[in-house]
Amino acid sequence: MQLVSLDDIRTAADRVRGQVLRTPLLPAPWADTDRPLWLKPESLQAIGAFKLRGAVNALAALDERAGAQGGAAGQGGAAGQGVDGQGVAARPSVVAYSSGNHAQAVACAAQRLGVAAHIVMPENTPQVKVEGTRMYGAEVVLVPVGERESAAYRLVDELGAVLVPPFDHPDIIAGQGTAGLEIGDDLPDVELVLVPISGGGLASGVGTAVKALCPNATVVGVEPELAADAADSLRAGQVVEWPVEDRVRTIADGLRSQPSELTFAHLQAVVDGIVTVTEDEIRDAMRVLATRSRLIAEPSGAVPLAAYLHRSGELPRGRTVVVVSGGNVDRAMLADVLG
Amino acid sequence: MQLVSLDDIRTAADRVRGQVLRTPLLPAPWADTDRPLWLKPESLQAIGAFKLRGAVNALAALDERAGAQGGAAGQGGAAGQGVDGQGVAARPSVVAYSSGNHAQAVACAAQRLGVAAHIVMPENTPQVKVEGTRMYGAEVVLVPVGERESAAYRLVDELGAVLVPPFDHPDIIAGQGTAGLEIGDDLPDVELVLVPISGGGLASGVGTAVKALCPNATVVGVEPELAADAADSLRAGQVVEWPVEDRVRTIADGLRSQPSELTFAHLQAVVDGIVTVTEDEIRDAMRVLATRSRLIAEPSGAVPLAAYLHRSGELPRGRTVVVVSGGNVDRAMLADVLG
Repeated sequence: MQLVSLDDIRTAADRVRGQVLRTPLLPAPWADTDRPLWLKPESLQAIGAFKLRGAVNALAALDERAGAQGGAAGQGGAAGQGVDGQGVAARPSVVAYSSGNHAQAVACAAQRLGVAAHIVMPENTPQVKVEGTRMYGAEVVLVPVGERESAAYRLVDELGAVLVPPFDHPDIIAGQGTAGLEIGDDLPDVELVLVPISGGGLASGVGTAVKALCPNATVVGVEPELAADAADSLRAGQVVEWPVEDRVRTIADGLRSQPSELTFAHLQAVVDGIVTVTEDEIRDAMRVLATRSRLIAEPSGAVPLAAYLHRSGELPRGRTVVVVSGGNVDRAMLADVLG
Repeated sequence: MQLVSLDDIRTAADRVRGQVLRTPLLPAPWADTDRPLWLKPESLQAIGAFKLRGAVNALAALDERAGAQGGAAGQGGAAGQGVDGQGVAARPSVVAYSSGNHAQAVACAAQRLGVAAHIVMPENTPQVKVEGTRMYGAEVVLVPVGERESAAYRLVDELGAVLVPPFDHPDIIAGQGTAGLEIGDDLPDVELVLVPISGGGLASGVGTAVKALCPNATVVGVEPELAADAADSLRAGQVVEWPVEDRVRTIADGLRSQPSELTFAHLQAVVDGIVTVTEDEIRDAMRVLATRSRLIAEPSGAVPLAAYLHRSGELPRGRTVVVVSGGNVDRAMLADVLG
């Protein structure tokens, strides 16, 4: 299986420049002195999560390929809409299905690149997320829960559009990897990087970049105990499925997916291990981020810090970067965690 | 009166580089389309507020002058502690009095530059702020409320130390101005900058930099209605004092000071006007920052956004930067505002 390379991630970085925030590394003066800590606040991206990186890269790559092929869409896509009067390739429209950060990521990326986007969401999606997606000009298609995938594929056929998957694609992995490139550039002597694992796109990309730029760094994935399928998979040497009814128990609603064959192959290659954290530890990490570093993290975004705070015995010491992957949390839940 | 110049601010930028976070401009996709908005999140500084900029610049400048003068302290200071055996000038220790962000700013700056710091705080300072100051290795001196200033001057005499004022000093103004330099560099076609006014150090520095780099930009100060002494002063053409018992009514506890002659002269030169906001509008802006841009702002830090949201009729349209000056808010107050 062909894995994403550092070169792919550098190409992605060129594509996303100016469209995606180059997040700073925030020093945490309250950290343990023998393991100084920096936070990579992906919660500050316009959509509140790292997923904009992969979406912008995937859409820009699609555009390039459509241009190169005279209007035919790129990898995995249906045919594009042909070439317009000026001889410039028309851009294929895109479809995504998600009730989470991927929806807003694709909508926002599409708006920035001038591409039409249809986002399929389950009918029970909170109104705030529907509005958040519409804000970027995307067409939101609400369907019964369980019909997201089939509805999305129907749209792809009807529209001649391209499906943008949330993690199972080299362009998505390379895009998320740009966060790792920035870590390697900003802190070349980093010794430990903690990153959340769900579908594995972020961990695959960040791990690939960090291992290439900082060969001595350890990359550790972090999962909730209640959705520790990737930990099981790495231990077993193959993807171990967890029933969805188990995975949905965690409050870390962004970490309920499981790796694909593609992301799992990356995790095997670039992640040194996985540690798991409890629900209380996730809440504690949200509180610490808010009170000590003034960052609002969603539960999934606080999971890596939970490992730093509560699993230090399982982690190497030294200069540590924690990826705060997102900050899209309901006001009520945030008030509850802080109160 | 000699005002701080763009050159002074550029010198400050050289001094603070690597010690102070170069904060990014965060685009706010939820803003009005005819006045696109960027947030300058000074809440992300290690101490949670812009004040680290001025403190690092003041201490580094002191160091340079002590070196140049063979151990004598710089402007406004008592004598230094002489020259050590290697012929290198010893660094004068520093004293500050503050119960707010200036305390942690001086403590943090002193630690980074290897200078001893004594911080005088009133006995009723919340424990979290005392601990936050001690975390940086500063000696905290608790004194009865009302004796802060006299206790600080006594320490200056006893220790041969230098007092670092919170705003009434050219080095502090120039240091705070580095935030304006970054705005001008990152968004040269900015049309409106909104900045809070208390003692006026931040507005003086940011206004000086922005007016020099972007002569077409309007710089507007923002104050709580309940502490609108600077608005009164600009209108009267001279510093108008408000009784402290009036100024303490606002929840924006960082905006209860009033300009000095030095900062007022800057405000007259570089600030185009001042608008005021209500307490409810400040709370609303805190909520918007948290929910829409995932930033925790203290009330003072949310004051400029309150003007953007609720005083649009008094402001020019166009590309707007709002300085989110700090994020040090009690967990309970934050939960209350969000809940």
